[in-house]
Amino acid sequence: MDHKLHTTPVAFCPRFHYAVELIGRRWTGAILRALLAGATRYSDITHAVPGLSDRLLSERLRELEAEGIVTRTVFPEMPVRIEYQLTEKGKSLETVLASVSTWAETWVDDRTAVARCDEVERAG
Amino acid sequence: MDHKLHTTPVAFCPRFHYAVELIGRRWTGAILRALLAGATRYSDITHAVPGLSDRLLSERLRELEAEGIVTRTVFPEMPVRIEYQLTEKGKSLETVLASVSTWAETWVDDRTAVARCDEVERAG
Repeated sequence: MDHKLHTTPVAFCPRFHYAVELIGRRWTGAILRALLAGATRYSDITHAVPGLSDRLLSERLRELEAEGIVTRTVFPEMPVRIEYQLTEKGKSLETVLASVSTWAETWVDDRTAVARCDEVERAG
Repeated sequence: MDHKLHTTPVAFCPRFHYAVELIGRRWTGAILRALLAGATRYSDITHAVPGLSDRLLSERLRELEAEGIVTRTVFPEMPVRIEYQLTEKGKSLETVLASVSTWAETWVDDRTAVARCDEVERAG
């Protein structure tokens, strides 16, 4: 029997599935990268991620907050200051994102990546 | 000046952005995981990934072929046999997917993941 799957069954892993689609959701990887690099304010993130609209950034930050990856703190100053910080769960994504970066450095061609980013910006 | 981004600028990385959204595209992570575990045939993959429709599997395999991550080989037998194999570029995603798995084992709750998978299946 040459049907590999019958001898080595592949268990589908819901946790893996959930995690990979969470970090790969449109713009989420780039937003997490900006937060890991020290961005804390809304405007820091929009400056760090070209092409990301305000609407999508709000949506993604709300999702990340709901996932327990980001905290949102409101400082009652004048004007009000809002800061986004990664939780422990969020910070521990650093290893994951670093391994994506390493793979991308080796295998993703600059032209492919830039062409794709243009596409994302037009659609975004 | 407490505005971190001004002192440590975060360069947006198109290669990273491209890579993270490629592996996180709907079902792609789960398909890659099945291929890494030894699935080579269309039916192996559909059995390994519950909820994945034929239409979406074809679409994802075509994309992965276009990205140079998967090769498709047609064996002119009766009946025709088609095998999907990861290229070197595809195989080298193993480290990335392993780091996603490690993160997921620690941080993703079973109930969250299962609830989300149900959602995906209904929509899929």
